[in-house]
Amino acid sequence: MDEIGVVKTKFLQFDGLRLESGLYLSPITVAYETYGELNDRKDNVVLVLHALSGDAHAAGQDENGRAGWWDGMIGPGKGIDTNRYFVICSNCLGGCKGTTGPISVNPETGAPYGRSFPLITIGDMVNLQAMLVEKLGISKLHTVIGGSMGGMQALDWACRYSDKIKSAVVIAATARLSPQGIAFNWVGRNAIMSDPVAPFKNGALVDDNGKTGRGLAVARMIGHITYLSEETMEAKFGRKLTLRDMDGTTYSLEENDGLGGEFEIESYLQHKGSLFMERFDEDSYVIITKAIDHFDLVRQHGDLVSAFKNIAAKMLVISFTSDWLYPTSMSLAIVRALQASKKHVSFVEVDLPYGHDSFLVPQGMPNLTRIVRGFLKGV
Amino acid sequence: MDEIGVVKTKFLQFDGLRLESGLYLSPITVAYETYGELNDRKDNVVLVLHALSGDAHAAGQDENGRAGWWDGMIGPGKGIDTNRYFVICSNCLGGCKGTTGPISVNPETGAPYGRSFPLITIGDMVNLQAMLVEKLGISKLHTVIGGSMGGMQALDWACRYSDKIKSAVVIAATARLSPQGIAFNWVGRNAIMSDPVAPFKNGALVDDNGKTGRGLAVARMIGHITYLSEETMEAKFGRKLTLRDMDGTTYSLEENDGLGGEFEIESYLQHKGSLFMERFDEDSYVIITKAIDHFDLVRQHGDLVSAFKNIAAKMLVISFTSDWLYPTSMSLAIVRALQASKKHVSFVEVDLPYGHDSFLVPQGMPNLTRIVRGFLKGV
Repeated sequence: MDEIGVVKTKFLQFDGLRLESGLYLSPITVAYETYGELNDRKDNVVLVLHALSGDAHAAGQDENGRAGWWDGMIGPGKGIDTNRYFVICSNCLGGCKGTTGPISVNPETGAPYGRSFPLITIGDMVNLQAMLVEKLGISKLHTVIGGSMGGMQALDWACRYSDKIKSAVVIAATARLSPQGIAFNWVGRNAIMSDPVAPFKNGALVDDNGKTGRGLAVARMIGHITYLSEETMEAKFGRKLTLRDMDGTTYSLEENDGLGGEFEIESYLQHKGSLFMERFDEDSYVIITKAIDHFDLVRQHGDLVSAFKNIAAKMLVISFTSDWLYPTSMSLAIVRALQASKKHVSFVEVDLPYGHDSFLVPQGMPNLTRIVRGFLKGV
Repeated sequence: MDEIGVVKTKFLQFDGLRLESGLYLSPITVAYETYGELNDRKDNVVLVLHALSGDAHAAGQDENGRAGWWDGMIGPGKGIDTNRYFVICSNCLGGCKGTTGPISVNPETGAPYGRSFPLITIGDMVNLQAMLVEKLGISKLHTVIGGSMGGMQALDWACRYSDKIKSAVVIAATARLSPQGIAFNWVGRNAIMSDPVAPFKNGALVDDNGKTGRGLAVARMIGHITYLSEETMEAKFGRKLTLRDMDGTTYSLEENDGLGGEFEIESYLQHKGSLFMERFDEDSYVIITKAIDHFDLVRQHGDLVSAFKNIAAKMLVISFTSDWLYPTSMSLAIVRALQASKKHVSFVEVDLPYGHDSFLVPQGMPNLTRIVRGFLKGV
């Protein structure tokens, strides 16, 4: 096959999931996609784990022609070669793209959970992924791989299900987020939670008074700044002016009323924030960033060496030189603890200028493809 | 004198100010404070320039016992010794602490300017400071000194009024802000401007429906993250939990509904944001950050060497190792252009871990005092 082509998202139902908090969440739907063919021995499976704003649509085109979020990495002849591997990607628990989350209907009330959706953890997401894998009849994964929150999940998979994976690839991730990362997430959530407009849901952005709450857009814009490197911002935007107002109309500097986004970087962020409001749910954003903030293998296990003691998988840890949100030092903390535990670990710091987003942008694919392809073959 | 003691803010009226945009803003009030005594030759004057959220109350106590924002630096025997120097500090144009700004009444409408206040520049602020100095009968300043936006003003003073100053101290500043800095300011303004609550004014935080718009708090929290270093955040907060909700009540992790700020860094930011809402005006925040973003001596003069060609003052440029918002590289760009122009310039990079705020925090005062005192004596 030359191309993945059009892919349809599939759905699986489960009676429920026991959350780490003790609460039983029921029922549960998981949205997932698969690419490539499962071999007879069922030992060619790669589980791909998405980041905060991702979804099950990792590769190929959806019915509207939209490419998957990691289409540059997954496909025939690509880094994760679908001529060789059977690839699964599911929307995470708490998401808003088909898997049970705040926009799902709470059977007890008949209305969407909204802000009443229970707190979940990265571990809960991983446990649900494990249920999906089991239901698909797969007992051992060739690899789990993900970046950012997906990298946290890959690491958690290695700790939690050491007997169910042969290897794990942890990209631009951490065993626990820095206070600065928590702070940025908090301000984003604060913008959402302080939003006095009635919570809007997927596409319904305007309240009864015709007012739009832009809390989610503000949160996304903060995120975007932290995903980009200073270097990329300089190169891509610098201090260039666009003379475009928030509604897209052009104007001269003289008639500037001070409210427009006249720097290019402002228009860019505004645009990204608006797009995100159309495609994401604010309560999912709150729930998922909380899970990210609270992921802490040190708190959970006492220290990283203890956290990693049962790991049997071959581990690959990747960081990016320009990532200041999940800097190399965080990856090195993982690597050193794995080495101290005598685990099989490889580490690559990739010299790319695109910040935390380096694992997602097309410019990063050649480097990442080479590294991932080699590692998968060696497993 | 041992202490400055209680200080009262004074006010001066002007017919108006011709803004760089061409608009004539009229009338104008300037709020200012002075410390120490003007000598007979009127040559012992230090003009102190405040940062974004500062005001005229730089030293001593106000009537409520509140210490000035740079009380650690200004006073008898301190870095700027009021036994020797006559110190002036005024609230900047566009501010909300007595000098004409968005909360002032527009004589044409009889109502506060609010969001209709005209766009202003760092140059407009400096021009108004020059009018104040002249009105006080002072023809030449010993020094102009300021940090962050105050440092931009000190630099602008040196370019604009080379014959009116003997020296300038530019602390943690830049000749033009990075796109990342613009981006953070933009998101803050966006949080304010997107706030669907009727604009609140100084203390009146609640609209007709009893709803509070927290846009200004969100903007301030973003600012705070960028003013602190990662190192300070780690040392001060780390990943410690407080189990305090947004309203200050305590709760257990089990009953956590996901909306509270259970990390200490969250509670800290929340607190800082709330305090700021009580003491600052959102339209001033918009107007002043716009002025900061648009300050650009390169755009204005073609290049920095041209910008600095008329400078006659002795220049001192100070940066901090841990300041990632106005990093040392920005100070060095100023220093190198001054050197290329054969100007008298000293440069110190101070090794302090407190980020951009290093010039304001008490822990930074011993270092900064030594440097500033020595420079002022040498002028």
